Amino acid sequence: MIVVMKADLPAQSPELARLIALAESFPGVSTSVHRIEGRTRSLTEVYLLGPTHALPSRPFEEFECVEKVVRITQKYKFIGRHEALDAVGFEHNGVSISQDSFHLFPGVCAVDTRENLDSMFRSIAAAGIVTTRAGAYKPRTSPYDFQGHGGGCLPWVFELAGKHGIRIISMEVTHESHIDEILSALREAGNPTAVMIQIGTRNAQNFELLKAVGQQTEMPVLFKRGMGITLEESLNACEYIASGGNRRIVFCLRGVKSHLGEPHRNFVDFAQVSVIRRQTRLPVCIDPSHSVGRRNAAPDGLMDIFHVTAQGVIAGANMVLVDFHPHPETALCDGPQALKLEELPGFIEDTSICRAAYLERTKRAALRAARV
Amino acid sequence: MIVVMKADLPAQSPELARLIALAESFPGVSTSVHRIEGRTRSLTEVYLLGPTHALPSRPFEEFECVEKVVRITQKYKFIGRHEALDAVGFEHNGVSISQDSFHLFPGVCAVDTRENLDSMFRSIAAAGIVTTRAGAYKPRTSPYDFQGHGGGCLPWVFELAGKHGIRIISMEVTHESHIDEILSALREAGNPTAVMIQIGTRNAQNFELLKAVGQQTEMPVLFKRGMGITLEESLNACEYIASGGNRRIVFCLRGVKSHLGEPHRNFVDFAQVSVIRRQTRLPVCIDPSHSVGRRNAAPDGLMDIFHVTAQGVIAGANMVLVDFHPHPETALCDGPQALKLEELPGFIEDTSICRAAYLERTKRAALRAARV
Amino acid sequence: MIVVMKADLPAQSPELARLIALAESFPGVSTSVHRIEGRTRSLTEVYLLGPTHALPSRPFEEFECVEKVVRITQKYKFIGRHEALDAVGFEHNGVSISQDSFHLFPGVCAVDTRENLDSMFRSIAAAGIVTTRAGAYKPRTSPYDFQGHGGGCLPWVFELAGKHGIRIISMEVTHESHIDEILSALREAGNPTAVMIQIGTRNAQNFELLKAVGQQTEMPVLFKRGMGITLEESLNACEYIASGGNRRIVFCLRGVKSHLGEPHRNFVDFAQVSVIRRQTRLPVCIDPSHSVGRRNAAPDGLMDIFHVTAQGVIAGANMVLVDFHPHPETALCDGPQALKLEELPGFIEDTSICRAAYLERTKRAALRAARV
Amino acid sequence: MIVVMKADLPAQSPELARLIALAESFPGVSTSVHRIEGRTRSLTEVYLLGPTHALPSRPFEEFECVEKVVRITQKYKFIGRHEALDAVGFEHNGVSISQDSFHLFPGVCAVDTRENLDSMFRSIAAAGIVTTRAGAYKPRTSPYDFQGHGGGCLPWVFELAGKHGIRIISMEVTHESHIDEILSALREAGNPTAVMIQIGTRNAQNFELLKAVGQQTEMPVLFKRGMGITLEESLNACEYIASGGNRRIVFCLRGVKSHLGEPHRNFVDFAQVSVIRRQTRLPVCIDPSHSVGRRNAAPDGLMDIFHVTAQGVIAGANMVLVDFHPHPETALCDGPQALKLEELPGFIEDTSICRAAYLERTKRAALRAARV
Repeated sequence: MIVVMKADLPAQSPELARLIALAESFPGVSTSVHRIEGRTRSLTEVYLLGPTHALPSRPFEEFECVEKVVRITQKYKFIGRHEALDAVGFEHNGVSISQDSFHLFPGVCAVDTRENLDSMFRSIAAAGIVTTRAGAYKPRTSPYDFQGHGGGCLPWVFELAGKHGIRIISMEVTHESHIDEILSALREAGNPTAVMIQIGTRNAQNFELLKAVGQQTEMPVLFKRGMGITLEESLNACEYIASGGNRRIVFCLRGVKSHLGEPHRNFVDFAQVSVIRRQTRLPVCIDPSHSVGRRNAAPDGLMDIFHVTAQGVIAGANMVLVDFHPHPETALCDGPQALKLEELPGFIEDTSICRAAYLERTKRAALRAARV
Repeated sequence: MIVVMKADLPAQSPELARLIALAESFPGVSTSVHRIEGRTRSLTEVYLLGPTHALPSRPFEEFECVEKVVRITQKYKFIGRHEALDAVGFEHNGVSISQDSFHLFPGVCAVDTRENLDSMFRSIAAAGIVTTRAGAYKPRTSPYDFQGHGGGCLPWVFELAGKHGIRIISMEVTHESHIDEILSALREAGNPTAVMIQIGTRNAQNFELLKAVGQQTEMPVLFKRGMGITLEESLNACEYIASGGNRRIVFCLRGVKSHLGEPHRNFVDFAQVSVIRRQTRLPVCIDPSHSVGRRNAAPDGLMDIFHVTAQGVIAGANMVLVDFHPHPETALCDGPQALKLEELPGFIEDTSICRAAYLERTKRAALRAARV
Repeated sequence: MIVVMKADLPAQSPELARLIALAESFPGVSTSVHRIEGRTRSLTEVYLLGPTHALPSRPFEEFECVEKVVRITQKYKFIGRHEALDAVGFEHNGVSISQDSFHLFPGVCAVDTRENLDSMFRSIAAAGIVTTRAGAYKPRTSPYDFQGHGGGCLPWVFELAGKHGIRIISMEVTHESHIDEILSALREAGNPTAVMIQIGTRNAQNFELLKAVGQQTEMPVLFKRGMGITLEESLNACEYIASGGNRRIVFCLRGVKSHLGEPHRNFVDFAQVSVIRRQTRLPVCIDPSHSVGRRNAAPDGLMDIFHVTAQGVIAGANMVLVDFHPHPETALCDGPQALKLEELPGFIEDTSICRAAYLERTKRAALRAARV
Repeated sequence: MIVVMKADLPAQSPELARLIALAESFPGVSTSVHRIEGRTRSLTEVYLLGPTHALPSRPFEEFECVEKVVRITQKYKFIGRHEALDAVGFEHNGVSISQDSFHLFPGVCAVDTRENLDSMFRSIAAAGIVTTRAGAYKPRTSPYDFQGHGGGCLPWVFELAGKHGIRIISMEVTHESHIDEILSALREAGNPTAVMIQIGTRNAQNFELLKAVGQQTEMPVLFKRGMGITLEESLNACEYIASGGNRRIVFCLRGVKSHLGEPHRNFVDFAQVSVIRRQTRLPVCIDPSHSVGRRNAAPDGLMDIFHVTAQGVIAGANMVLVDFHPHPETALCDGPQALKLEELPGFIEDTSICRAAYLERTKRAALRAARV
């Protein structure tokens, strides 16, 4: 059972303390207070754990400070909407991410040279973007492929990010030790930027790693859907993270493996954007680069990567992780799918049209609903 | 080899006759003239068949009336773009359908009662739409399910269509005899409307039926992708139709079977809209109803059916086949996925926003390309 | 409800007539008598159709001639086992096919020359085999591939079959007209052999063709599983055939399309042999050639085609459809998967070991069950 | 390039030293000696690493002690057969495992109580089997499912194993720390048994864990194929392990996720047994329990679990991992697929028939090959 408190309740509210005391007076029931600091307001939720199925909701609803009491019926205990909860999202290093926000994360799939990264960040910054992706630890299908520069590049990656005003870097980790490596490197660099930890598709069911990123709360987690598993299994994997304590999770669709999606690298699964928004409180990211995997364009002059991005955005996606590279032909990883820096303004223009159209769609839907 | 003539060349052009004579003077080479009557202009293409790989293109290019000579290198001989051909489309009963047009085909999955169909057509007409879907022959997974009213309902279906000014009905056939049944019924009713023949996903590789619909040219063909086969195999199936003589084909995406697409009925494959537009000359249709299969809505108030439609349209889809029903709860087929008549204006409003956004996207892309 | 009569009940039994009269005395109930002529005994089943859920079984069980009364609870009305029925099979041109029998059907995928077919049949006959496959009508993914010789080759195909004592040829049809073509050609040739009609994987949901082969009873039907559909959907397709009147159906597994089965041409699905035997009364065939698609051998000296055949047989498969060709390198269709004529004795030897092992497995299982 | 030495070459052979010196005299070439101790003989291979493509093979072939020189052309550098290498396998705690051996590993999916494990081991031992499975660390799709007893149960698990003479326990690890936990527990218990580390399907591309198990050589590794990835990707994952130094790897097929395999829990992929044996040097294991997932039996009295086991064994599988449980109805994990202890003798009898048939098949194949 979740008791949602009214907005902006002080953390030290005596009424809150009384409510917790009441809850814990029921045999076997414990509580866990979850506070979400959003950009414009804060939200407090009290989770009642244990044998709560027989608990009355009335005594809790009667508290002045309570907005609503929600019974948890679905399987996604911590990430689920339970048909009543809002998807409030979170704020990280000044950037607000929720089911209502929209951010582009253009960047390099794998960090290679300082010069390339500098060019990349400069282009992003010039376009007014403060969020990016940059991989230091790369899981590769073959042990003989480039595996990323590892922790060694972190100092200059963070330094460059700070120089260009980048506020969040989405960065994949493949081992729990990377969490501390990243946090240490950030600290040593004077926290010039912040990191969102990325769980790649190959580790989508690496439960030990999920627990590790769930037990730290310094960094939010971008979880990429598993390649050959159902959406439900992937959402259960997010539940692992959330149940560890970290609920600042973004769910990223990136296509799945199937011959039915050819000639694309993966079968683009962005039709599930609205499903995740309905079933969970998680903001939804799309990764058009790994989905499509190549730069072919339609006769209308727009590359497939632009088209599938448009498809995610028009359905309400909140984040776009997209591969760029100053020199795709020399990229050490996934060059064939990288956009060129000079294509960034066009990409932004294109996604802006789609985001505006999405907002218009929801505005009109609200008007229609109001008329009924 | 295809010789594309300049627009609006008269069918009886003596220059055309000379070109054909020249072509046929090469040993083993025969010709086939293909004339496409578009809304605003007509186009003539001369196919040179036989051992044309050694043919020089120069003598043909020198004709005054020739726009270009295209060597066929890809596998999709008749439907392919061969990287040089335009996707001119076709006109049927006054409605123009091409890779540049956009039409909604709302309608009933299966015709049931006269009253329901009358309501359906009235709503469509009221919205200014002249294209619909209405199934008389229904292939069903189990022999014990409702199989459609068959040819018996055609007289009143066509009569009602005429009454409401419907110009095209997309109608599935499952047997070659249905072609004549439909043509006869149209004739007997005084051709109050026209039909686009639909090949369902279960018959996507029923080559005998494909040949049959390809050998008639009175009606264009809407081909629905096969459920468990690759896009390439489905395009090869369209090539069967086209090689029979009928090149007025629309390719319809409708989702494919995979557990990875759950909770949707099928795995939505609309990311391939731009692929088909690139590889072939075929207009692309999407069927959001059979893809999604249910009426769930996202928290933004828009049903998944609206969202996936938006995804197809924002990427350039030219047609939308969508299930409506006056009383979905009593529909004899696929009721759970049908929209209600009162939802039609909202659906039109929503798709209009997306179509406008798509056109804006292509306009901006053209401007960007011009700047380079 | 199905009333199973005791074995060898005469068709004109007065008791049977009384039972039918009793059944039809219930309001809305009609009957359909189904007689199965097996090699050693005949079986009569009376299907009670209509509102039978409220029918008492007692009055029917009391008839002397009744073995048992089975309530139909599953979806596979005509092909299902309903947890009580035996899988009696059928006899065709002196060959008995059931869930207890075992036959090899080696042959050519597509008939090409008279010489090749003569060699093929001679080899089979020399090995003591009287059942084969030979395709005259070939459905091909591309319209530009060899489509088979069609009806024109039937006279000499049947003549050669007769010459070599072939009793059954499994032959794919892709159009209902082929049924009559085959029957006429057989008749004109003096019925020197018999045909089992084959429905290919691409027509697995061509319901009109299924109805057509179901409405004739001269020839049994070999149904090949659809490539991208579930087993349940394929079994429903067989139910179409059976509900038309023809219950002499063999279900053939031939692999399904999936990248997960690479490097084999299709994902071998022979683990479902026992599922079909449990759920239905149909004998089960396997097609190792189309499943595997190539001639690679394991280090143990046995080709993958031999190994997957062994896998089907060890689990109880009743038929093996396998491609051979006198000159695979010149075959017009599927040459890369064809075995050579000189490999036939080895193939027979190998499958015999497996069949013997399967029989031994069931014998031991019965002994173990008896001990409990 | 791999130089395979003649069998039983002493590790200190001066000729070997000269060969290594010769190899390292080529610029940039280094060597790595790999010694395989088999049950009856030992084998030495010298890997020449670096720019070996231009190296002559002749000077190496001329050494008296050299059996053959193999150029590595395929991608599976360390696990590949390269069309010339034997699959020699390895020995662990007195048990020899190779592409020629055959072992049953019946056991519990997850360790629950001491009593149950004692019963389990007693039954196995009574049947003369010394190899088993027993899971202490269980990765589960939902965080709210039983996750295994973890390291705490290892002391009594190993003690019981020793008591019953169990020589190898296959045990899944989900975190690198489990390796040391297991080794310590074994040591503390006085090494009464040995462990084969199991990598589960969900960690099939957890490359950090693969590296960790590859860098230790005390325990061999049983690698379970990834659920939604191709066979090639799974074999690349094994290459990760092997490239770390540990080449004592067994590849385990356990079915893959696909709706096409229904009603089985997973789509059984045992047709790939012969593929793995051809492409790699790895012994092949099958896991019928996780593939099938339920206890349904065919009308021949044999459960599907028996049938798919038979299918793996008849094609040459070298190991069978199979779930048993003294009380399946109370098992904390995967109870529905567990066989009962009293079914063990039948299972052994059934697989013995299949193994004998497999050996007979290969014997006959060798005779046929000798005749040609």
